[in-house]
Amino acid sequence: MAKQTYENGLFITFEGPEGSGKTTQMQLIADRLREQEYEVVTTREPGGTPLGEAVRHLLLTFRDEDILPEAELLLFSAARVQHVRKVILPVLKRGGIVLCDRFIDSTTAYQGYARGLDLNVIDDMNAFAVCGRFPDLTIVLDLSVEDGIRRLSGRYQGQQVDDRFESAGHTFHSCVREGFLDIARKHPGRVRVVDANRPVELVQADLWWEIYHALN
Amino acid sequence: MAKQTYENGLFITFEGPEGSGKTTQMQLIADRLREQEYEVVTTREPGGTPLGEAVRHLLLTFRDEDILPEAELLLFSAARVQHVRKVILPVLKRGGIVLCDRFIDSTTAYQGYARGLDLNVIDDMNAFAVCGRFPDLTIVLDLSVEDGIRRLSGRYQGQQVDDRFESAGHTFHSCVREGFLDIARKHPGRVRVVDANRPVELVQADLWWEIYHALN
Repeated sequence: MAKQTYENGLFITFEGPEGSGKTTQMQLIADRLREQEYEVVTTREPGGTPLGEAVRHLLLTFRDEDILPEAELLLFSAARVQHVRKVILPVLKRGGIVLCDRFIDSTTAYQGYARGLDLNVIDDMNAFAVCGRFPDLTIVLDLSVEDGIRRLSGRYQGQQVDDRFESAGHTFHSCVREGFLDIARKHPGRVRVVDANRPVELVQADLWWEIYHALN
Repeated sequence: MAKQTYENGLFITFEGPEGSGKTTQMQLIADRLREQEYEVVTTREPGGTPLGEAVRHLLLTFRDEDILPEAELLLFSAARVQHVRKVILPVLKRGGIVLCDRFIDSTTAYQGYARGLDLNVIDDMNAFAVCGRFPDLTIVLDLSVEDGIRRLSGRYQGQQVDDRFESAGHTFHSCVREGFLDIARKHPGRVRVVDANRPVELVQADLWWEIYHALN
């Protein structure tokens, strides 16, 4: 049986804090879509290409000096433009579905709402990096900061957290959450907020409902 | 004796192809200025900070896939904004002189004129990265492509050239040269072109003439 395809592809991004279940939920959606014979490519940011993974490593582990928010924005955008042109656009052009773990809204939430960079500058940078192809649907997996911290402490079981973002403080993560919610208010056509503080199956049901409507 | 200072500092950049003698000439100028009791900081791009050096290493040696011109532009800009805010602006604010080996005009010449990115996009990116502080004086050390290649082959004495930029072809380097000359035509107040295909002492004399006028 031939793969099901879309004329312009379908581009779905998953956003939310660490511990919100993005990766798990995205994988479940990918399995479900593949069962229905769709071509599905799962990817993530920062990363998704050899260059992107190199930049990801730099962004998450660099400790020799603090990385300024402006530099952070440009590094994420560099990884993104490579990712969009090399991975995402080719899949969409042949009618496939791209599921991406974090994308432009993470940049807006983290570098804009949390680090305080001008949102207009970030919008311009995001527009440049996506080469005109914004996501068709964005799922924000929403979680209170307390629930996020609880889930992460379970994940790491007391180990040292080496990720520059995961180890940031409560205020930072609170700004990130408000950022995601504000982005959803500004882009009601593209962005859907799903309560992530529920059992995996219930969250997945809500996600599938949103994706089912995007598919049809 | 107290150091001589400027109210807003003095920011001088050195541009030109590999092999044009930028590093040697800049060092001679630095020595001369220090003899006159100026505070001089020499630096280079990409690089100049720990993050910048990490990005420099990535840009010059990455071989796992080709780096798209758009990603190259953003990586250079990331290194630059960190460099400007962490190194260049603090020196200028206390009245010092910054000599920088490559800066925004290399981005315009290499990513714009040679790689073909939109010059307006590059101008916007450069303006963002320099945080409003453009160089006071830029010296372009001009060299024909043939002379540049001859000098580089002397430098490497037949060794493999591992630098992604130095190993690019004749057309590329010809576009870079035209780029630098065009930038000089567009910014006659800031940019001076000096013929680099002469003995070090003669080139240095011309450079000093330009810098002497910028100082006084």
